[in-house]
Amino acid sequence: MSTQPNDSQAEIFERLESEVRSYCRNWPVVFDRASGCEQTTEDGVTYLDFFSGAGALNYGHNNPVLKQAMLDYFSEDRVIHSMDMFSVAKRTFLHQFEDIILKPRNMNYRVMFTGPTGTNAVESALKLARKVTDRTQVVSFVNAFHGMTLGSLAVTGNEMKRQGAGIALHHTTVAPYDDYLDHDGHDFDWLRRVWSDAGSGIDLPAAVIVEAVQGEGGLNAARMEWLRQLGQLCKEFDVKLILDDIQAGCGRTGTFFSWEEAGIEPDMITLSKSLSGLGLPMAIVLLKPELDAWQPGEHNGTFRGFNPAFITATAALEEYWRDDSFAATVRERSAQLKAGLEKIAEEHGAASYRGRGLLAGIGFETPELGKAVATEAFERKLLVETCGAQDEVVKTMPPLTISSEDLQRGIDILADAVKAVA
Amino acid sequence: MSTQPNDSQAEIFERLESEVRSYCRNWPVVFDRASGCEQTTEDGVTYLDFFSGAGALNYGHNNPVLKQAMLDYFSEDRVIHSMDMFSVAKRTFLHQFEDIILKPRNMNYRVMFTGPTGTNAVESALKLARKVTDRTQVVSFVNAFHGMTLGSLAVTGNEMKRQGAGIALHHTTVAPYDDYLDHDGHDFDWLRRVWSDAGSGIDLPAAVIVEAVQGEGGLNAARMEWLRQLGQLCKEFDVKLILDDIQAGCGRTGTFFSWEEAGIEPDMITLSKSLSGLGLPMAIVLLKPELDAWQPGEHNGTFRGFNPAFITATAALEEYWRDDSFAATVRERSAQLKAGLEKIAEEHGAASYRGRGLLAGIGFETPELGKAVATEAFERKLLVETCGAQDEVVKTMPPLTISSEDLQRGIDILADAVKAVA
Amino acid sequence: MSTQPNDSQAEIFERLESEVRSYCRNWPVVFDRASGCEQTTEDGVTYLDFFSGAGALNYGHNNPVLKQAMLDYFSEDRVIHSMDMFSVAKRTFLHQFEDIILKPRNMNYRVMFTGPTGTNAVESALKLARKVTDRTQVVSFVNAFHGMTLGSLAVTGNEMKRQGAGIALHHTTVAPYDDYLDHDGHDFDWLRRVWSDAGSGIDLPAAVIVEAVQGEGGLNAARMEWLRQLGQLCKEFDVKLILDDIQAGCGRTGTFFSWEEAGIEPDMITLSKSLSGLGLPMAIVLLKPELDAWQPGEHNGTFRGFNPAFITATAALEEYWRDDSFAATVRERSAQLKAGLEKIAEEHGAASYRGRGLLAGIGFETPELGKAVATEAFERKLLVETCGAQDEVVKTMPPLTISSEDLQRGIDILADAVKAVA
Amino acid sequence: MSTQPNDSQAEIFERLESEVRSYCRNWPVVFDRASGCEQTTEDGVTYLDFFSGAGALNYGHNNPVLKQAMLDYFSEDRVIHSMDMFSVAKRTFLHQFEDIILKPRNMNYRVMFTGPTGTNAVESALKLARKVTDRTQVVSFVNAFHGMTLGSLAVTGNEMKRQGAGIALHHTTVAPYDDYLDHDGHDFDWLRRVWSDAGSGIDLPAAVIVEAVQGEGGLNAARMEWLRQLGQLCKEFDVKLILDDIQAGCGRTGTFFSWEEAGIEPDMITLSKSLSGLGLPMAIVLLKPELDAWQPGEHNGTFRGFNPAFITATAALEEYWRDDSFAATVRERSAQLKAGLEKIAEEHGAASYRGRGLLAGIGFETPELGKAVATEAFERKLLVETCGAQDEVVKTMPPLTISSEDLQRGIDILADAVKAVA
Repeated sequence: MSTQPNDSQAEIFERLESEVRSYCRNWPVVFDRASGCEQTTEDGVTYLDFFSGAGALNYGHNNPVLKQAMLDYFSEDRVIHSMDMFSVAKRTFLHQFEDIILKPRNMNYRVMFTGPTGTNAVESALKLARKVTDRTQVVSFVNAFHGMTLGSLAVTGNEMKRQGAGIALHHTTVAPYDDYLDHDGHDFDWLRRVWSDAGSGIDLPAAVIVEAVQGEGGLNAARMEWLRQLGQLCKEFDVKLILDDIQAGCGRTGTFFSWEEAGIEPDMITLSKSLSGLGLPMAIVLLKPELDAWQPGEHNGTFRGFNPAFITATAALEEYWRDDSFAATVRERSAQLKAGLEKIAEEHGAASYRGRGLLAGIGFETPELGKAVATEAFERKLLVETCGAQDEVVKTMPPLTISSEDLQRGIDILADAVKAVA
Repeated sequence: MSTQPNDSQAEIFERLESEVRSYCRNWPVVFDRASGCEQTTEDGVTYLDFFSGAGALNYGHNNPVLKQAMLDYFSEDRVIHSMDMFSVAKRTFLHQFEDIILKPRNMNYRVMFTGPTGTNAVESALKLARKVTDRTQVVSFVNAFHGMTLGSLAVTGNEMKRQGAGIALHHTTVAPYDDYLDHDGHDFDWLRRVWSDAGSGIDLPAAVIVEAVQGEGGLNAARMEWLRQLGQLCKEFDVKLILDDIQAGCGRTGTFFSWEEAGIEPDMITLSKSLSGLGLPMAIVLLKPELDAWQPGEHNGTFRGFNPAFITATAALEEYWRDDSFAATVRERSAQLKAGLEKIAEEHGAASYRGRGLLAGIGFETPELGKAVATEAFERKLLVETCGAQDEVVKTMPPLTISSEDLQRGIDILADAVKAVA
Repeated sequence: MSTQPNDSQAEIFERLESEVRSYCRNWPVVFDRASGCEQTTEDGVTYLDFFSGAGALNYGHNNPVLKQAMLDYFSEDRVIHSMDMFSVAKRTFLHQFEDIILKPRNMNYRVMFTGPTGTNAVESALKLARKVTDRTQVVSFVNAFHGMTLGSLAVTGNEMKRQGAGIALHHTTVAPYDDYLDHDGHDFDWLRRVWSDAGSGIDLPAAVIVEAVQGEGGLNAARMEWLRQLGQLCKEFDVKLILDDIQAGCGRTGTFFSWEEAGIEPDMITLSKSLSGLGLPMAIVLLKPELDAWQPGEHNGTFRGFNPAFITATAALEEYWRDDSFAATVRERSAQLKAGLEKIAEEHGAASYRGRGLLAGIGFETPELGKAVATEAFERKLLVETCGAQDEVVKTMPPLTISSEDLQRGIDILADAVKAVA
Repeated sequence: MSTQPNDSQAEIFERLESEVRSYCRNWPVVFDRASGCEQTTEDGVTYLDFFSGAGALNYGHNNPVLKQAMLDYFSEDRVIHSMDMFSVAKRTFLHQFEDIILKPRNMNYRVMFTGPTGTNAVESALKLARKVTDRTQVVSFVNAFHGMTLGSLAVTGNEMKRQGAGIALHHTTVAPYDDYLDHDGHDFDWLRRVWSDAGSGIDLPAAVIVEAVQGEGGLNAARMEWLRQLGQLCKEFDVKLILDDIQAGCGRTGTFFSWEEAGIEPDMITLSKSLSGLGLPMAIVLLKPELDAWQPGEHNGTFRGFNPAFITATAALEEYWRDDSFAATVRERSAQLKAGLEKIAEEHGAASYRGRGLLAGIGFETPELGKAVATEAFERKLLVETCGAQDEVVKTMPPLTISSEDLQRGIDILADAVKAVA
């Protein structure tokens, strides 16, 4: 690696990097090393990382098993980039994904390799839903987050991000997420009614796209019963159900998929973020075989065959998902985190626990409080971000591999941070 | 790496991978190893690669310099994935990009790190152009290719891919590319006239997006004079000029940027594909500082801080772009390729040379011929793809690092392939 | 008038008139004369007209007072067509509309003369709402009907008519009309919540457009309390309230405007159909003076100054609306009609009374029944149409000037018709 | 008619009529009487009318033949408003339209009665073109004017009027009108090329909509040869040709249809303005029988059956179009007008003759001049309006029935007005 130019540490970022940069504004230090649940700056200051690359590092930084698999692959001149040509690395991934993930869950899906970002996967799923149904509308939910390219942005709720499009976003209908309104037991009355009514002015949609836990939108966790009813509604009207599991999936909530307990059968599932495990860009869409109406190359992307990601993804499956033991540990940690957060919220008074599994946090009564807590946590060497439309929710996403002790350490820092702003 | 399940080689792809897969249909072999200008199947058959990952592997497969830089980085637990936090790796890239690329060319631009695919970069540039101008229309050119997500697809010409959107694509105006019509000297009369006419029904656009060589669209190379006139037109009306250099950039045409000779100053430039050099996903937008009106986080993406790509990108800059010697060699190879292709075209009769630099090929009179030539080449162990709206153009993209001998070997195979179908 | 060519009576319609013709299919006779509540065919068969030109003939066919005013105007060469030039006829209309309609109701509105069809008025109101708010979305209600041109069609519910657009209709959000869902007391929870939530993905709209009684959509009559709450909601969020009173206004429900009892203050009101009184094309938008941000000629139309319509409209105001006596009679007739329809519905069993005032009917359990009843009524020389998304509602719209005896005659025929299909 | 309230003459217009009012601003007098080519104010001042209701009064104000036909109809209680029921008046119109207009021209079309404004007719034609082709795009021309409702506005060029929409207008492609660019002989190269090219990014459209003379857009008259080539292009690609003859039709250019000399066969033709002859609102679409794919009621409108307009339309056909004598006179007057206008333009220097037939005027070098001439003409008791995107063209539209003397009188006044501003 090249010699570091003699320069003040952050000057060039401020001068040369676009104003769109974001996380570095709250955490104005230069990171260099990272391992497990920790990141260390070039000055040698270590931070406990309850951010985990926004969910892209479920197995921790530089996870040794995954990293070794990648280095082994690099030890010979194996193909790195292969578009959608057949490669040994991709084949192995497919085999293991089928054996370890799909078969044990009785899931019959095909795998579409999209450009290696979540938004590319979401765009693919939306395209396919529209194609197979010959309909155009898609139902999304308030406070949803599905990505930043125009197709995904159209099903995303955040107003600031939507306005960034610069043009109107169409072909979507917004519906209330679970617990958004106080209409117990009436969650899907509206959609069921208008889809049945030729005078409603609302067309039957191609698809519903949903997250089982809304990570960016404020850590809203849908009840399994709500997901089941949604699944039932979609089946009833032959509307395709797209489960966006990019942030909540890959074990984050204590099962590989975040919606497993609901017993539903989505028509399509998007995965990215922690799919490769080591932070390597990768994204896929799982789709029911009968939906696979793509023409060859109808959707493509240059980096859809990034073989090192297939290697680490395979290693992650083999290491963590051959049986339930890893998931069981995640559920234990989740309980510990929930207890800790609830206690903090209770002591604070007006705050409340939000989320599910290791995708959880504390909702505060004002955005100012949420941001202040994150700032106080950073000063105490804990990385936590905020989420929700107003950044009113402090979000914790420790690695799934974190020890109970490190988890408690983070909870304790967070408790101090909350006290500091109260 | 896991043991390969005992299975026929391609069965699982056909069973489990989506029908959208494309290149593997023309090249039905399983690749395993790759080095320089060659890829080798698991059965040990070696192919000369004039495809280069659709332009993502300008420095060849497993380029030893780039690979070593990456392995050095991995030798310690350096941060791999860091969103848009400050990292040492990113800082080094910025410094070297400024010193090696921007400063010698008197270019004053900021760098926006987008999601690591070309289409994410294009979507970002379109958003920003609309934001800073408060206009919505974008002018694109016939046969353009800018990506598969909805914003990029709206400025892409290919009908099959556009229809894949499943919804109407708006806010774009299509203009003729250089040499599309026989209106010598009148190229921009139409745009100039309607932008000046309050009764034209055509709004002044936010931006024009253009490729200096249309790679996917049929290897159409714009004249530098045409690009200059386009630049002048945009300046005159304060329309932002977006130069999409994703495929033609990073040295492919004999200069780092494909449009350098035109002496224009685009408002934004998109780079991806060979930017990281080793096939690692990475994409950026270069933007004039005065356009940097982004709000923090207004556009984001999980993999926008993939540090290994910054490392290999830096290594590529340092190795190949500190002086003009590498580029000079590319121009020599380009001349050799052009001479070879022109000879083949001439011998064939109705075909013609297309493109520029090492982004060149042969346009045939029918799509059937183009596809047949590619098939014959594959049988002779040469990988070349087709492009153009009807796949009527055979496209060659050898690595920039190819030797004169290997280049000639490929040309000779192609000549045989053409003879075989004639 | 020219001599009638010797021809079978309906042949030329079938041969030369477009298939889009509609009412003539259910009533295949050729009308020639009409007076009050009756129309007579060229063969001398007289029908009792409970259709009244879909609400354009509230004062009956050839109302003698209105007709005389028009003939007086024609007796000299007064200006007939004057675009939006000043004319004596228009001035008189404005004076009388102010004195007779606006002032007694403490209404402060300006009058915009649009092209003389309801849809032109609706398009004008939507344009102005978008202009003054600089927002784009409009909320409309399920089963709404506002017109057939693209702007109005976008806020219309009927699926068949929407699909006639041939393109997607955007910038609208559909909300449940009063009593559409069983959410008593929660009617506007959803809109209030999403308009307050920056993460909802639903933009604050420019306007809400609503009918106090949905005439085409199935004779759904909103409660005054619901309209009041809607008015309050709009005020709270500075969303413009457009009251489309084209069918239900001009006295049809027993007050000049159909929503008077609610005590609300719409930002804009559209009127057409019976505004001219004699069936002459005319349409206006009433708008609060502070919204009058139009540029001269920003919206126009060739027939917006059809003076004979101003003359008959003035005559209607002077004859029927100087005091409450006419309206009181309409309310008496309305009570009679309601009692009659309720009795028929009760006897039938599964049917129910729908609507308000003299815009009322019977909702049947199947579309087949609705259509069959209308057919049976026609055979008994009563003209009634069907409405609702499935034509499941039989709609009666007798002239407001009908006598109690004629009204009862129609009710009795309808009762027979219902019995005939039971 | 009611007694005129004692009031200043124009006060109530300024107080109560919307700011959108337009013509009255340039002509601030109150008109009361009108006959032939003259309008008279309530103060007894008479103006020579070279405006003719923007083309709605081709046969002059209060044309005695048409007016008598209407009064005869009103002398008995004939049906006035009948939606799309069969009526004797409509049948007579159909017979005479067939005999007098269609048959002698060997035209085989069906008649669709739309809402009685031009824009309703245009919206209908666009809907039908999209329906029968199952395509969405429509090609319109720079400086076109087709109406103010959203569908028609999308194919209209004027920027101020387009922005009045308040939302983006889509699904249209703009092409250069005849003589807009200096591409002699290449008028349709662009459309022909992109419609043939699957990579162009421009979909084959449903229709092309065109005016033979652009009245509002600046009196641009297409050459017959250009129209023929356009007709040929549409036939070649099965794109529907919609001829909007609302302003230029009904004899205005010396033939009943403005495009007759071209010998083309439009798929649809829109007529309105002078169709009824006496200024009564009426509009129709003529459509080739094989396009008549409407479902009953798929497009409708309350005033589509305004029988008095059918009566006056029939009378106009019978009086003026049974043979060529009237048209021949119009052509004589046209020659006189052209000579007069050319002389004025020549004397002025930088101005030029524009238009065709009695739809002609003078294009000035600046908008200020155009407006000033119209103002000077008004002061000399001549009504002429301006047109073009910048109001740079003074437009004359005398009644077709004008005498040679009155025509010359108007020309002379205009000459004076031009001299006054020079």
